[in-house]
Amino acid sequence: MSKALFSLPPAIRKLAAELARMPSIGEKSALRLAYNLIMRGDDLALTLAEALVQAKQLTKLCRRCFALTQEELCPICADPMRDRKTLCVVEKPVDITAIEQGSGFRGVYHVLHGLWSPLRGMSPEKTKIPELLTRVRSGEVQEIILATSTTVEGDATALYIAREFNGSSITMTRLAQGLPKGGELEYADQLTLQHAFSGRRSL
Amino acid sequence: MSKALFSLPPAIRKLAAELARMPSIGEKSALRLAYNLIMRGDDLALTLAEALVQAKQLTKLCRRCFALTQEELCPICADPMRDRKTLCVVEKPVDITAIEQGSGFRGVYHVLHGLWSPLRGMSPEKTKIPELLTRVRSGEVQEIILATSTTVEGDATALYIAREFNGSSITMTRLAQGLPKGGELEYADQLTLQHAFSGRRSL
Repeated sequence: MSKALFSLPPAIRKLAAELARMPSIGEKSALRLAYNLIMRGDDLALTLAEALVQAKQLTKLCRRCFALTQEELCPICADPMRDRKTLCVVEKPVDITAIEQGSGFRGVYHVLHGLWSPLRGMSPEKTKIPELLTRVRSGEVQEIILATSTTVEGDATALYIAREFNGSSITMTRLAQGLPKGGELEYADQLTLQHAFSGRRSL
Repeated sequence: MSKALFSLPPAIRKLAAELARMPSIGEKSALRLAYNLIMRGDDLALTLAEALVQAKQLTKLCRRCFALTQEELCPICADPMRDRKTLCVVEKPVDITAIEQGSGFRGVYHVLHGLWSPLRGMSPEKTKIPELLTRVRSGEVQEIILATSTTVEGDATALYIAREFNGSSITMTRLAQGLPKGGELEYADQLTLQHAFSGRRSL
């Protein structure tokens, strides 16, 4: 922190420092947010503080799929209308929100809370992969959709899980890779283009 | 809020909604921040909540210049080494931080907490302009630097204050307008160029 900031009240400096710990909030934005939170006419600073404490205290992981929930089971696991034979495996709880908003998927989920990444010291045992294996082997799942991201670690994790079910009757699928809808060819990277070609479909 | 978000725990939805009330945080960023705050391994959610409450409770306006402070007087007003004859008038407390970081200014400040803006129903009486007039008339100020922003409202406010001291011995100045350092001519807007020409200085 630069010297000039020491003319600020310590409580504001502390607030800005805490805000700057959030992802994608820089030191300058944090300071601007801190000023805004203290100077605005309403009580956002206090209602936000209350919401933070509440969310931290009330939220836990779903007993079955490890999504975030306030109950024993998340609303999706508790919903009798969801198709329990189709299981979508994702890395983070926020991925569920993205899929629910856009895909029309009506099955259930399993959140890994991490990817297999030897370089970062993430072994499969540090994720919810063991729980996934137990869940699938004792359950009614017929298809596993591996919806981890299309990074090296996302691919490796998908492959690791697929290999665990080698020889079983469970269908393993991976989300299609190719050009994004509305994406222009000239802006697509090489790997995406390779996937788009190798995965081309007849019309 | 879209329908899919209703599968989220209410406490997370509430937290995201509060975060989205902050300036320049959209609904999607707010949701991502909320997830991060709850899922990360450390206790940022709770320390941030504590910092919010503390900053809101401990911070008040400096009795003299209306900057933010935890004492009766802000560190700048309390500093005997600052030049009390030179007063810099700014709109917001955060402007002081910008000037302290960059300008080498060694005088004192007065924060208006608003600009004269008839269209937005901001009369001079709703700002700290009356307090400025009283302060200057009863004090030792010899120069007032009008450092409000170079917008219509910033200019109008500067002009309003300058007119109040018409005929007095106090020097009124406005920050220089022109090309920003490192700014290329071809990207400068017309008004900036006009100011740069009319304010040109001999080398």
